[in-house]
Amino acid sequence: MANRSAAELRQVTEKIFSAAGAPADLATEMADALVGANLAGHDSHGVIRIPAYLRMIAERRLDPKARPEVVKETATTALVDGRWTFGHVAAKYGTSVAIKKAKEAGSAVVSIVRCNHIGRLGQWASQAAAEDVIALVTVGGGGGGAGSVRNSAAPFGGAEGAFSTNPISIGMPGGETPDMLVDFATTVVAEGKLQVARAKREPVPTGSILDKEGKPTTNAEDFYSGGVLLPFGGHKGYALAMFVEMLCGAFTPGDELNGDGRRGGAVIWAVDAFAFRSQASYEKNADFVMQRVKNIRPAQGFNEVLIPGEPESRSAAARLQEGIPVADTTWQQIVDGGKSVGVDVEALVPA
Amino acid sequence: MANRSAAELRQVTEKIFSAAGAPADLATEMADALVGANLAGHDSHGVIRIPAYLRMIAERRLDPKARPEVVKETATTALVDGRWTFGHVAAKYGTSVAIKKAKEAGSAVVSIVRCNHIGRLGQWASQAAAEDVIALVTVGGGGGGAGSVRNSAAPFGGAEGAFSTNPISIGMPGGETPDMLVDFATTVVAEGKLQVARAKREPVPTGSILDKEGKPTTNAEDFYSGGVLLPFGGHKGYALAMFVEMLCGAFTPGDELNGDGRRGGAVIWAVDAFAFRSQASYEKNADFVMQRVKNIRPAQGFNEVLIPGEPESRSAAARLQEGIPVADTTWQQIVDGGKSVGVDVEALVPA
Repeated sequence: MANRSAAELRQVTEKIFSAAGAPADLATEMADALVGANLAGHDSHGVIRIPAYLRMIAERRLDPKARPEVVKETATTALVDGRWTFGHVAAKYGTSVAIKKAKEAGSAVVSIVRCNHIGRLGQWASQAAAEDVIALVTVGGGGGGAGSVRNSAAPFGGAEGAFSTNPISIGMPGGETPDMLVDFATTVVAEGKLQVARAKREPVPTGSILDKEGKPTTNAEDFYSGGVLLPFGGHKGYALAMFVEMLCGAFTPGDELNGDGRRGGAVIWAVDAFAFRSQASYEKNADFVMQRVKNIRPAQGFNEVLIPGEPESRSAAARLQEGIPVADTTWQQIVDGGKSVGVDVEALVPA
Repeated sequence: MANRSAAELRQVTEKIFSAAGAPADLATEMADALVGANLAGHDSHGVIRIPAYLRMIAERRLDPKARPEVVKETATTALVDGRWTFGHVAAKYGTSVAIKKAKEAGSAVVSIVRCNHIGRLGQWASQAAAEDVIALVTVGGGGGGAGSVRNSAAPFGGAEGAFSTNPISIGMPGGETPDMLVDFATTVVAEGKLQVARAKREPVPTGSILDKEGKPTTNAEDFYSGGVLLPFGGHKGYALAMFVEMLCGAFTPGDELNGDGRRGGAVIWAVDAFAFRSQASYEKNADFVMQRVKNIRPAQGFNEVLIPGEPESRSAAARLQEGIPVADTTWQQIVDGGKSVGVDVEALVPA
């Protein structure tokens, strides 16, 4: 495990994706997105993904040269064709369309079809909040298709997978306070955490998975032998997962586009933050709420109350200073990935 | 405890609110709303509330003659002044405005200020779904004001109340399948359930409340001695509660209207269900998702997987047949409430 600076990791990411065929601006967007996830503390969505995306490019499931485009729109809606470019590129573009429409029309909905993995959803909700737009970003609707990841999460009361982790992120502008960021999977844990527990042979939290018989277990191996992830908060988290599955299915008619055949994708539901109050009044309210909650006396076992998004912003501040820890095996995979497209990562970033 | 028919309870509710000053159509709306909550199985929001609303009318905090109106609007937004009529009347009206705007413009947001208790949120989300509009309905933003109910729920990691139970409801049209209805408080339990546990001297579920010191407890009395409700799903439910608090605060500028001074109220965020697919295609997707999830093999301890909203629709079907159980004390309070406005409830509905 060595710490790498954000600048180094950005450079590596850009060079690799440029060499793999991405135009310079898209390679930069990928560096922003992946290193942004690392900075936020969500390493599972950071540079660790580079090798997988390179494989998708090699297998022609991801077109690094393609650019997303709006294929159908009204004043308040837009259907974006991701054209199987990087999902992050499609998500950034789709979010920018949603921001523009929300600011012009008041409220807007954008969906993205033919879309690869869009990474950390919080990135796009934060993009909206930074532009004074409240956005709910979600991905799903692909359940029922092939592949274990697509069907890794069970409904409440069920023993079989029905959807993916159907995550939800919401960004809201702050005032003098920072923007607020909600960002979670609708399962108790994301699959990445099970991988970690499996590797370390540690138990997973009670109530996070079932084995293939539909019985509770804390052994991560049971998940990989036909088990399922459970929704967080029982029937409430499941209800949110169903909302995501229904909404994303309804709004992503990829199966009707270019004969592609797949359903599911990303939805960005956006509204102008200043639709009902002036900017000054909005910000005063945001500050009032956030400062009031922040000042709540901590419960037993806690040192303070955190505002949603605060863990991510603290992580980013620390990692900009101290660097981002990258496991040796991950680093080696990135080095190997670089080689596969003719980039000497170790020459770029000496150990 | 006796069972009363929905028709009887509707008649009683209409007569009482008419006698209390409500125009006939608004009294009917209140009967729809309250008896609808009983039918759905949410008795805490049903006819048990009649005496409290009568008290509010007597104290002139609720104006049964007032009608809500749009005081500011664009093609995609509307600010509704509830004019302190019944919250249910304001919510029905606000939802109808949101439905109309979502159908015309694609997406819309309506907020309601100067608004009394709007009852079961699922009623309004269902109203939208029945009109082929997807709606997220929520109430909050009043935290920090006076009153224990307003500040009954703690943030994750906190020992003091910061907001109310900040509920969220989402309605989505079905196809051949029934409409889907998500409807929950962002706390583990609503305060009404603590009242029941307290009366029965039964413990409440672990993880649902803290005592005044910020320590976990299962004794409902501890809540009423300065304790707090906890968010469901830990930091995830808390993040949703913060979203509700921030959104409803931002979108309900009641404090800037008529010098009323209060913040908080209801927000209805709506989108045309057929914004991205034809009706036939939308319904095919809804049926696909719901039937697929419904057919998932049950987990240990469960007989079947339920679709969100199914418990409510089953309750309604059963209670339309068998009647609605009304506790004797509740019935007596309704009889007394009737007397206070000159309605002889017992003559209307013989025991």
